[in-house]
Amino acid sequence: VRYSTTGTSSLENAQPVVVSTAYGEIALAHNGDIVNADALRAELQEKGWAFATSTDSEIIVRLLANELTVSGDMVKAIKNLTRILAGSYSLAILFAGKVFGLRDPHAIKPLVLGKLQNGYGIASETVVFDFLGGTALRDVAAGEVVVIDNKGYTSHGARSNAPKAHCMFEWVYFARPDAVLEGVLVYEVRKRLGEKLAEREQVEADIVVPVPDSGRAYALGYSETSGLQYVEGLIKNRFVERTFIMPEQKARELSVKLKLNPVRQLLCGKRVVLIDDSIVRGTTMREIVRLLRKGGAREVHVRIGSPPIVAPCYLGIDMKTRDQFIALERTWDEIAKILTADSVAYVPLETLVECIGKDARDLCLGCLTAEYPVEIKGEKFRGQQVLEYYIEEGR
Amino acid sequence: VRYSTTGTSSLENAQPVVVSTAYGEIALAHNGDIVNADALRAELQEKGWAFATSTDSEIIVRLLANELTVSGDMVKAIKNLTRILAGSYSLAILFAGKVFGLRDPHAIKPLVLGKLQNGYGIASETVVFDFLGGTALRDVAAGEVVVIDNKGYTSHGARSNAPKAHCMFEWVYFARPDAVLEGVLVYEVRKRLGEKLAEREQVEADIVVPVPDSGRAYALGYSETSGLQYVEGLIKNRFVERTFIMPEQKARELSVKLKLNPVRQLLCGKRVVLIDDSIVRGTTMREIVRLLRKGGAREVHVRIGSPPIVAPCYLGIDMKTRDQFIALERTWDEIAKILTADSVAYVPLETLVECIGKDARDLCLGCLTAEYPVEIKGEKFRGQQVLEYYIEEGR
Amino acid sequence: VRYSTTGTSSLENAQPVVVSTAYGEIALAHNGDIVNADALRAELQEKGWAFATSTDSEIIVRLLANELTVSGDMVKAIKNLTRILAGSYSLAILFAGKVFGLRDPHAIKPLVLGKLQNGYGIASETVVFDFLGGTALRDVAAGEVVVIDNKGYTSHGARSNAPKAHCMFEWVYFARPDAVLEGVLVYEVRKRLGEKLAEREQVEADIVVPVPDSGRAYALGYSETSGLQYVEGLIKNRFVERTFIMPEQKARELSVKLKLNPVRQLLCGKRVVLIDDSIVRGTTMREIVRLLRKGGAREVHVRIGSPPIVAPCYLGIDMKTRDQFIALERTWDEIAKILTADSVAYVPLETLVECIGKDARDLCLGCLTAEYPVEIKGEKFRGQQVLEYYIEEGR
Amino acid sequence: VRYSTTGTSSLENAQPVVVSTAYGEIALAHNGDIVNADALRAELQEKGWAFATSTDSEIIVRLLANELTVSGDMVKAIKNLTRILAGSYSLAILFAGKVFGLRDPHAIKPLVLGKLQNGYGIASETVVFDFLGGTALRDVAAGEVVVIDNKGYTSHGARSNAPKAHCMFEWVYFARPDAVLEGVLVYEVRKRLGEKLAEREQVEADIVVPVPDSGRAYALGYSETSGLQYVEGLIKNRFVERTFIMPEQKARELSVKLKLNPVRQLLCGKRVVLIDDSIVRGTTMREIVRLLRKGGAREVHVRIGSPPIVAPCYLGIDMKTRDQFIALERTWDEIAKILTADSVAYVPLETLVECIGKDARDLCLGCLTAEYPVEIKGEKFRGQQVLEYYIEEGR
Repeated sequence: VRYSTTGTSSLENAQPVVVSTAYGEIALAHNGDIVNADALRAELQEKGWAFATSTDSEIIVRLLANELTVSGDMVKAIKNLTRILAGSYSLAILFAGKVFGLRDPHAIKPLVLGKLQNGYGIASETVVFDFLGGTALRDVAAGEVVVIDNKGYTSHGARSNAPKAHCMFEWVYFARPDAVLEGVLVYEVRKRLGEKLAEREQVEADIVVPVPDSGRAYALGYSETSGLQYVEGLIKNRFVERTFIMPEQKARELSVKLKLNPVRQLLCGKRVVLIDDSIVRGTTMREIVRLLRKGGAREVHVRIGSPPIVAPCYLGIDMKTRDQFIALERTWDEIAKILTADSVAYVPLETLVECIGKDARDLCLGCLTAEYPVEIKGEKFRGQQVLEYYIEEGR
Repeated sequence: VRYSTTGTSSLENAQPVVVSTAYGEIALAHNGDIVNADALRAELQEKGWAFATSTDSEIIVRLLANELTVSGDMVKAIKNLTRILAGSYSLAILFAGKVFGLRDPHAIKPLVLGKLQNGYGIASETVVFDFLGGTALRDVAAGEVVVIDNKGYTSHGARSNAPKAHCMFEWVYFARPDAVLEGVLVYEVRKRLGEKLAEREQVEADIVVPVPDSGRAYALGYSETSGLQYVEGLIKNRFVERTFIMPEQKARELSVKLKLNPVRQLLCGKRVVLIDDSIVRGTTMREIVRLLRKGGAREVHVRIGSPPIVAPCYLGIDMKTRDQFIALERTWDEIAKILTADSVAYVPLETLVECIGKDARDLCLGCLTAEYPVEIKGEKFRGQQVLEYYIEEGR
Repeated sequence: VRYSTTGTSSLENAQPVVVSTAYGEIALAHNGDIVNADALRAELQEKGWAFATSTDSEIIVRLLANELTVSGDMVKAIKNLTRILAGSYSLAILFAGKVFGLRDPHAIKPLVLGKLQNGYGIASETVVFDFLGGTALRDVAAGEVVVIDNKGYTSHGARSNAPKAHCMFEWVYFARPDAVLEGVLVYEVRKRLGEKLAEREQVEADIVVPVPDSGRAYALGYSETSGLQYVEGLIKNRFVERTFIMPEQKARELSVKLKLNPVRQLLCGKRVVLIDDSIVRGTTMREIVRLLRKGGAREVHVRIGSPPIVAPCYLGIDMKTRDQFIALERTWDEIAKILTADSVAYVPLETLVECIGKDARDLCLGCLTAEYPVEIKGEKFRGQQVLEYYIEEGR
Repeated sequence: VRYSTTGTSSLENAQPVVVSTAYGEIALAHNGDIVNADALRAELQEKGWAFATSTDSEIIVRLLANELTVSGDMVKAIKNLTRILAGSYSLAILFAGKVFGLRDPHAIKPLVLGKLQNGYGIASETVVFDFLGGTALRDVAAGEVVVIDNKGYTSHGARSNAPKAHCMFEWVYFARPDAVLEGVLVYEVRKRLGEKLAEREQVEADIVVPVPDSGRAYALGYSETSGLQYVEGLIKNRFVERTFIMPEQKARELSVKLKLNPVRQLLCGKRVVLIDDSIVRGTTMREIVRLLRKGGAREVHVRIGSPPIVAPCYLGIDMKTRDQFIALERTWDEIAKILTADSVAYVPLETLVECIGKDARDLCLGCLTAEYPVEIKGEKFRGQQVLEYYIEEGR
């Protein structure tokens, strides 16, 4: 699956893209963001290439076809892609009756290898294999090419001493709570973050209320550690997605209000610790605080299970411009004021890293630190990552 | 809204139904089940009536048009309906620029009067008014006719000494947790039932796991009272509704498995108290028990927040035949065996009634007791309910 | 088929209408116009009836269901309809595994009985049976009820000494040229009218050009009798119906121009006799005259194969108001001036009647004479038509 | 417009195709058939190109983008296309706010330049400009590039001493009767062919019946010259195209029968000269002969307004294999026998050429002679056509 980073989901972005080459048809699905897509497109157009769509997926598949023609070998062609593409890219390619998987050399976006009843497969999340009656085997490694055919799978691994750059936001928000990323259960990370938050950022209050569904695991951790009662004080409307007859302009204003309803009887007169995973712009959170107060909450203390977001993401999250971040160059008190909350607190960066359980150098923390694992024009680069050479597994 | 009691949702059942009469157009929406619909339809067809649909809603609106023509007065016509129709019916009628509401004399299905920004309205749940920026005022009374126009609303109440028959399943399952029915918050009823269950039906275990979303409030109550940790060990797939490309025959087999995923890391080696609101056939629950065991649970103890369902419902729930109920003429041990659970326990009837906080005589408990508040052929009738006469409010 | 007399074709008018009665389902299709539909609707609504649609078809089928309930016999019920309904109505009814056909007592609209490979059928035009590999047998008689079942067909005829009122416009415009109505081939009627027109309304000219497709048979007759060359000087665009992407507002202005194209090389410098079947408003004809002149025609003489239309039709043609007729209270010279034609000529009424080959008293000529075969408020009634009694065939 | 040469109309063939290049977007519409499309595709794929569709239009637009990048000039790029593409191609290209038209060096398919109210345009038929309120100016010449912008149009003509190869089938069947191709009115060509047919292929008969609509102009010519009466004895069903609910398998069997209906009253006992433009397989014609006999025709003499088709077309007509042609290696008597006709006669090749009024060397007669104006593998090439060089108009 690809998280739509452009807000709307257009047919043009539908995956996979399919092209026919001298060697047969190639179908390609892509999760991630190619940072040098515009530069590559311009460069290729200068050579006379014409593109049918504006997607980076078309750039990838056309480059791949070109590399395939040069080398005559799909694994080599895929390896060569890693020297051309910059950014995050987990690829699934169908060609000549085989499935080829590639995870970018930083392993930014997840890609999982799993066993199915009659073979093997690759997917973005481990839970896909649960659903299909199979078993997730392991994460595809940074820069690794996996080839699946009737007989099984082979791995064409890259030797790299360089650090990885797993997107921390997968654990914080993107992945399902039951997904296991790099061996770490998402639910556990979130619950631990909630516990840490309770230890560090105590406040005198009556109840802990999660923003459903994203804040639930955090809030359970906070509740257990703080001893404050866990209350589902905001109810999510399961039918909102079906309100297709609503005029679009009003739909946006109403969306938060329609999605969440404060339960007056549970909130009335209470001092509430409101828990969510993260804040980007703050507009939704501000609206939720207002809803709680309207529902009778006496105090609202916002507790966030990750550090403040202060920089754009170019590698897979839809946050591209700086001016939108509520936490940028503001103190927690200033943020609380904007949110109309009684207080605001975040988790420190080192606590996030600790709860994920990885070395900070193996995570992409770009949106929290403004230092990025790949070179991005106008942004700080955190240092060279070297993909030394490819090795064949078992040779 | 009308809960589709026929399994599939066809266009024919789309509401409201609209007809044109000598007095203008009438639009009618209907929640409930008319018990004597077939008899009425046959009787009217004997008189030469022809029906365009097979819905009971068409019967109601055509009878209404007929009554309107006799009396020339819509309130009288609606009142007369209560002498003809047997069963559950909350009606919303649009006619001559006014909204008319009627709740059946047993008040079986909910109907709520609320204030909106520029007037009044009626709805099935209080939360509708929260969403629209208004306020729920009160339940429409048993047999009451409410008329809403530009100037406000008037009530044409029925004087009745007879007991009500509010459907207990609204609190147990149907209504949203944040809804308030007859003055009682649904979330609170469920949580209290979970607490009572923990008091009465203790078991040595490690964690409490709800069936999401229906068992969540029950499980929170159970966890707090028992002291066992609350764990979201089953994760619901939000994307399942969109799997429209799946071949229909397989869809059914996969549906439970696709909707819920057991979180191995949280369940492995644990003794689990699994909590849900109710069991009808037991097929889903049996599958969930199997999922938990597959996820590593060492023991699975099923705890249900309401009494065993042993009889059909004719008044709004899609359970029409006796042979389907797992609890019918079985001991809890026998049920546990079928569910492949280590144990099963329910809440007693009197505890349910106590937690709802109403007199048992004011509830419809038909599916639990096989005694019904309206006469149904072949079933036990629990006694006469008399709608004495209509009074005009304020006269 | 029913000719849509309201301009647009809405789903509500889709046929057949289906209702369920005490005797089972009835499906009804209707060609014609019920003159007393509004009066019947009002009368029935006064009795408490409510209607789901605004169609006269619903009135008919509901009355039929009512009559069926009174008599318990479908043939009787259909016969009784003829005492209630005023206007034109050819009905096809599906009920209890049989097809029932009824043609109104004036036989205004066509209805044909035919033999199919495995049984019998009824249709609006004889050509339907040609297409289905069967044979048209005969017209259903005025007031006759035909019943078709597995074993064959029976006829329940009405004895009537009264004149018929076959719509003359079926021969002139509505029916396909290969249809046979009341034993008379449409193509022949049209060609004969063209011949008569050539005899009576000669003009010095070079070529005869039909308005395609309606004027073609008339023009062939005119050409043969006058000796003037027949030229397809206006070409119809077969693709116009597919121009669904055209913005609707412009579509109307362009419609005549897009449908017909003058062939300059055939028309240039020529004196043209332009032939069509009839003129209603004259707006289209005026545009066609303009097209011919633009295509180089030196003179344009309009010749019309039927008399001037001067009165509304209430019985099946979409011409309801008087102010629209170009021929009303105007001389032929005045009409020619409006059409920007060099001359205009029509066929006299007696010639039309002669060419159809029926007694004038057996035709409906209402739109030509303003005298109608059924009573219509505010219009002249041409005298009583009596349906004496029904007889059973073969008894 | 592009005549669909593959039988079905798929979305993939929808035009125009749009691509983005270093110079901006290019949109291209294409009428014709590229004979070396497969070879070009293979060659380009060998270079590493990947194609999103299987259309030759994508090959053209991608080559064009490539040429544009080399030369930086769209006119040069288009001219270079004529050195790469073999076959028939009339192109309309939208680029940088201008319209570019190209007609292949043999001028096989039509392309017309016309004046519109606010500028200029190009189209496949002259009638487009009639409809849009403009004027057709002239045919685009063989190998000519036309550029249309806000200021007017410029021409970049090719000097070529080589003969043209206008498709004769445009006059015979494809074009509308009111279209003018290379200065010759289609209607006149067809009528003249009918006249010649009457002169050469007389037969004792009573009436002349055209296959509508294709045979009409031929039949009028035949009727005038032979003195036999012109009769519209086959009526076309205008509603057939709308029978979308008909199950597809049966639709094909019924299609001829449903499209045409013989008028028994006109045909009964008559000796019929049946006229059409051409015969390919003969299956439809055989069915029509059968229809006429069923309609009562005593004799049926088939007269065809063009020579026998005996060879495939690779340049725009959907006739690709030899074994399908009824006229291949058969005498007229043998053909008549297959068609169950009393006699069959065609127009000779030289008469066709004479009636079109062009030099035979300037027409493509491939399907009649099996000699082609472009090199096609396995087929006879009629000799080199040389596009000498491009000249700029007015320099």
